Order: sequence, then C-alpha cells, then structure tokens
Amino acid sequence: MTVSEVIIDVLGDSFTKVVTLSGPSHAEEVIQGQPTTLVAASSNFDAAKYIQILFSNPVLRTYANPDIKGVELGGSMKNVIAIAAGICDGIGYGDNTKAALLTRGMTEISRLGVKMGASPATFNGLSGIGDLIVTCLSQHSRNRKVGQAIGEGKTLDQVLSEMKMVAEGVKSAKSVHQLRQKYEVNMPICEAIYQILFEGKNPKKSVTDLMARELRLEN
Amino acid sequence: MTVSEVIIDVLGDSFTKVVTLSGPSHAEEVIQGQPTTLVAASSNFDAAKYIQILFSNPVLRTYANPDIKGVELGGSMKNVIAIAAGICDGIGYGDNTKAALLTRGMTEISRLGVKMGASPATFNGLSGIGDLIVTCLSQHSRNRKVGQAIGEGKTLDQVLSEMKMVAEGVKSAKSVHQLRQKYEVNMPICEAIYQILFEGKNPKKSVTDLMARELRLEN
Repeated sequence: MTVSEVIIDVLGDSFTKVVTLSGPSHAEEVIQGQPTTLVAASSNFDAAKYIQILFSNPVLRTYANPDIKGVELGGSMKNVIAIAAGICDGIGYGDNTKAALLTRGMTEISRLGVKMGASPATFNGLSGIGDLIVTCLSQHSRNRKVGQAIGEGKTLDQVLSEMKMVAEGVKSAKSVHQLRQKYEVNMPICEAIYQILFEGKNPKKSVTDLMARELRLEN
Repeated sequence: MTVSEVIIDVLGDSFTKVVTLSGPSHAEEVIQGQPTTLVAASSNFDAAKYIQILFSNPVLRTYANPDIKGVELGGSMKNVIAIAAGICDGIGYGDNTKAALLTRGMTEISRLGVKMGASPATFNGLSGIGDLIVTCLSQHSRNRKVGQAIGEGKTLDQVLSEMKMVAEGVKSAKSVHQLRQKYEVNMPICEAIYQILFEGKNPKKSVTDLMARELRLEN
C-alpha cells in the first residue's frame, strides 16, 4: 500500500483530502532558497490546489497533479533505480552505463505503474525521472550509497549493519519484486537489483546478463 | 530539417533505408568497453534491425525504434536543455534546480515533438532523457560548458570566440525558437534560453521569471 492508501484505510473512504507532496527537492537546498519544483498530487482537486498555493513562493514552484498513485509509486520505486546507479559507481562504470540504467529503469517502473492504474506521464515528471536524477546526482543519497558499497563488493548485510539511516530502496526492491510477479510485468533491471541484494548475485555478472538479453524494440 | 530528411531530400522518397543511431554514448567510454545502450531508428524496420544487430555486442546493446523523427528531434533539442543545465551550474544553483530544468525542459521538447509527429515515448527514452542525463553528468559536454560560462556572466559572443569546437545547442536553440512559433507550443524554458543567448537577458532574472509563472497542472 502507498502512504495515501494507508491513510484512507484508517480514516475511511469518505476522507478524500489526502495530498502527496513530492519531487526533486534536497531539503538542504530548499532551506538555502535554491529554486525548487514540487508536485502536489491528490484525487481531490481542491485539496491539491490548496497545497500547491501553500507551497509556492519565488523559489518554490509546485505543480498540481491528479495522479496521486503515479506520484507515490514513482517516488518510492525510483529508489530501486538509485541503488542500481550506485552499483554502477561502485563497479566503476561510467556515465553511459548510468544513463542507460536510469532511462531503462524508469521505463520498467512506468510499465508496472501503468498496470497498477497510474498515468505514464507522471513517471516522466518531477516525482519520477526528476526525483531520480536528483537522487543520482547527489553524493548524499543513501540509496545510491548502499548501491555503491555493494558494487564495491560488500554484502547487503555488511552495508546495512554499518548504516544508521534507512535506505528505503532496499525495502522497495522487495515490494517491486512482489508487484512485478503479481502484475506480470517484465522488469529485468529491477529483478537484477533484487537478485544482487537478496540472492547474492554478482553485480558485474548481472550487468553482463542484462546486456546479453534478446534484442528488442525500445518501446 | 533533420539529417534523415536532408538525406531523403537529396536521394529521393524511394530511398527509405535511412537509420539514425543515437543514445547516451560518450565515445571515450564506448572505446573503453563500458556497457552502453543505443537506439537504431528508422521507418524501415529491416534497416533498423540490420543496424541494431550490427551495433550489438556484449558491451553494446541497441534497441530498435520506428520513430526516427522523435529520435532525431530529441537528440538535437536536448542540447538546448544541456545549455540550461550549464547555466544553472554557472549561477551556482544546486541539484534541485538542475533536476527541475531537465525534467520540465524535456516535457517542453516532447510537447513540440509530438506536434511535429513524433511519439511521446521516444523523448522519455535513450535518445531523449537518457542522452540528456549523460550530457548533463559530463564535465566535457560542450553545450553544458557554453551554458556554464554564460551563467558565470559571459556573453555568447565571448564564449563562442574562445571555443574551437561547435556547441550544437546554440543553433538548436534558434531552431526550437522558430519551431515553437510555427507549431504554437508553450515552451517557457526553451524561450528563456533563447532570450539569454540571443537577447542578452540576465540568466538569474530568467530563472526568477520561470518560477513566478502562473501555477499549473504538471501535465
């Protein structure tokens, strides 16, 4: 369940004013007044509009989006791809490989999200690819860091025992694995991440296997 | 005209075997054998397939795409957004602003491309956002460098007179400006780049103006 689904599960269906605020927004930069964009998503248009206006000022620009499901799914599933980008750094691969992982990874997430009822455009927006870009640019992202350590040869247990903070993407990788099976969606990159994290598959071997798959159409 | 349109203009409509090869692929990394993905685009499926197979090996994975128009437009127009990302670096803005520019910039390009007959999915693929990510990650991108110098306060004439290589995005910014008017598409980020490059608009003021526009839906 997404957070908004949990809230409605507790408060009842008649409570429709749940708004999710998401987007590429390192808190450190927001507080410095760096220009930042966000998305306020809700199935209730008035509620989204209210939060949009509240969170807009000369350095903060918030867009409204009715697709709360897409915003929540993109915002959590992109952390799995951030781990993949970190693995790429850990192995020592360059920008070509990372850009391929981000792009094709987001295509997979969008494919699953659409099957779950979200809109494809949302995944190509601020809460999807936008947030993924900021996560992967950042040296501070915990998900990217977990990936990097694993790419350097550590096991997930070693990495997690050395961390004080939570790297959400590790749990999301498990959820994506389950959802992928439930909705029968082909997600080779997310599946590779799952196998690296939980089944001890060698990261470099995983990339080789991903590259060697049957040739396909892009879309 | 795109390159494939020029080729067909010269060779005649009966020549359909034009294939465009594009995607996030720094040549320096390809030669090192870093895993890299590409798109082979052609309206002729057999021709695309031929190039796809020719350009696939254990470190090179090529996808086929029938949308040659989208691949060519995305590949050239993304350079305008790369200039914007460089301007962002030159002013000293952080990752939040850059991620916003990349995401919303690509939304604008996709909007124009779709009006010109391309498929929206192509702009979210390897030749669109994928190539834009690799360009903006790179310290070597000429388009990003032009933007950075302008963000630091130089004029376009100063920057170009100091450069030996061609920064394609400068010319593409002019083409996008013309196409935007012809197809009547709202492209505030691309328009701001045009004004900064050719009308001497202050880059920081441009960002302030972009942030202050009327609040909107994300899609």
